[in-house]
Amino acid sequence: MTAKTATTKIADSAEAQTLFDKVAGLSTEAGNPRIKQIVRRVVEDACRIVEDLDVTPSEFWTAMSYLTETGQKNEFGLLMPGLGVEHFIDLCIDAKERAAGIEGGTPRTIEGPLYVAGAPLTKGEARLDDDPEDGEVLIVEGQVTGEGGAPVAGAIVDVWHANTLGNYSVFDKGQSTWNLRRRIETDGQGRYRFRSILPKGYGCPPHGQTQKLLDQLGRHGQRPAHIHFFVSGPGHRQLTTQINLSDDPYLHDDFAFATRDGLIAEVVRVTDPAAIAAAGLETPFSTIRFDFALNPEVAHAPDPVVVRPHAEAA
Amino acid sequence: MTAKTATTKIADSAEAQTLFDKVAGLSTEAGNPRIKQIVRRVVEDACRIVEDLDVTPSEFWTAMSYLTETGQKNEFGLLMPGLGVEHFIDLCIDAKERAAGIEGGTPRTIEGPLYVAGAPLTKGEARLDDDPEDGEVLIVEGQVTGEGGAPVAGAIVDVWHANTLGNYSVFDKGQSTWNLRRRIETDGQGRYRFRSILPKGYGCPPHGQTQKLLDQLGRHGQRPAHIHFFVSGPGHRQLTTQINLSDDPYLHDDFAFATRDGLIAEVVRVTDPAAIAAAGLETPFSTIRFDFALNPEVAHAPDPVVVRPHAEAA
Repeated sequence: MTAKTATTKIADSAEAQTLFDKVAGLSTEAGNPRIKQIVRRVVEDACRIVEDLDVTPSEFWTAMSYLTETGQKNEFGLLMPGLGVEHFIDLCIDAKERAAGIEGGTPRTIEGPLYVAGAPLTKGEARLDDDPEDGEVLIVEGQVTGEGGAPVAGAIVDVWHANTLGNYSVFDKGQSTWNLRRRIETDGQGRYRFRSILPKGYGCPPHGQTQKLLDQLGRHGQRPAHIHFFVSGPGHRQLTTQINLSDDPYLHDDFAFATRDGLIAEVVRVTDPAAIAAAGLETPFSTIRFDFALNPEVAHAPDPVVVRPHAEAA
Repeated sequence: MTAKTATTKIADSAEAQTLFDKVAGLSTEAGNPRIKQIVRRVVEDACRIVEDLDVTPSEFWTAMSYLTETGQKNEFGLLMPGLGVEHFIDLCIDAKERAAGIEGGTPRTIEGPLYVAGAPLTKGEARLDDDPEDGEVLIVEGQVTGEGGAPVAGAIVDVWHANTLGNYSVFDKGQSTWNLRRRIETDGQGRYRFRSILPKGYGCPPHGQTQKLLDQLGRHGQRPAHIHFFVSGPGHRQLTTQINLSDDPYLHDDFAFATRDGLIAEVVRVTDPAAIAAAGLETPFSTIRFDFALNPEVAHAPDPVVVRPHAEAA
């Protein structure tokens, strides 16, 4: 045989292309052109996956049941980082920023699904732990800088993290509303400081939808210990990021792909009795020094503020 | 300029490809290879859509909120036909059947989300309407044939349809459990016959997720009047289909893309007083004659029975 007949794909047929156009409402002026554009592409790509991978109807409806239950358990916000899509979006925004001339600064990383707006705001410093807990004391301090490394006074460091069981207040009704959530306004030198407890790494809910799929992929659902931040300052681009604690075994094996160079925080343990006493404490504690370098706002850069639904404090 | 630099896509980068491989668990033997294969493709394609269409993070999370609510309202079963994917899957199965040497027979079309297993079973004929309603009497009769046009005795005609308000029993708690749902076993000549009421066309729930997206696409969510069937017979391939009533204005404009040549049923209205009396009725009624031609089971053909979750009768 010298000639080879290319297999004709159904998705390439006039019948299917006409179907996709009709589905996306391309034949009418009514509706939202942006949503039509996205739906046209999503539907054709979904159909191509069905055809190319010989997805059976039973497999397809199993997937739909999976998505249904994911909605019912409200786990899309956990599944998307688990599937690397939230990290990929970060890579896209990084590239857009470079194209807009923005280079350097503290790297962004995924927000995750557990932010709650409106945490108590204090100046310069805060104590985050409202609930008595066994955790080791953690002191975090640093400086927020902007263009040319100049300190950003009046920046807001909005911080949230899990307790030693890996749970977040608001979602975990056993914690006080704002436990381990605060907003700190930097002082005149751009400095912030907070006292909290050392968070632990944690995993996806073991009976949830995300873990269910990870099991099928032969993957774990663990995150290294980390602390979330939104950092914003006048004239600067808001930064969404996390710091990962240096001593966690999952530091470079985060199921959510959020660890990035430049976001690893060295945890320094203080065991010297004199230093412990000087800090007004009675047992060994840990410290982290982490500075945030913000980029100045520029024209034609993608909006760094992501509009997405958040849980609300009761 | 004679040379042109191709834009490098992030999705093509080694970093992204490594991410996709990790996401799908390709580096481990654990897990389910088929699910890994599908997830690898779905995630890469989803990321390519994000990149190619410049999907902003806020647009992305709007989409995730939409999917979440679609799960919570249990509308994936309605959205997939509305986006033409269920019809596309039918086109794929048609092609697979042709490849397996199966040609002809009554066309398949989408099942839709409203089947309930276990309807009462009777021989030869049935009356479907259990609830008193204003609808016009409809008599449907026909024959189930198989290989060479031979009648299939003992075939099961599993039929379900909406009432005159467009609602289905079980989902509509105002109806008797099995109203407008029956299974009829064909007689020795492969014949079936049922009395019911003429169904009306209907639309998607006006405040549901499917209609919400259709609005954005500038599309309506209407279906022409139709009757659903599973038809199965010993030695033959189960048929999933619908008949569309010929006199409906949406006959060729079904939001679910289910109308197919060969599935349009001519509705014959009987107004002659003598004929009405002969049928034991007092007012004009409608009749439909519809025969089902099943294909014999063959090796290496795709399974015509789709495993998907169904609502259950209480």
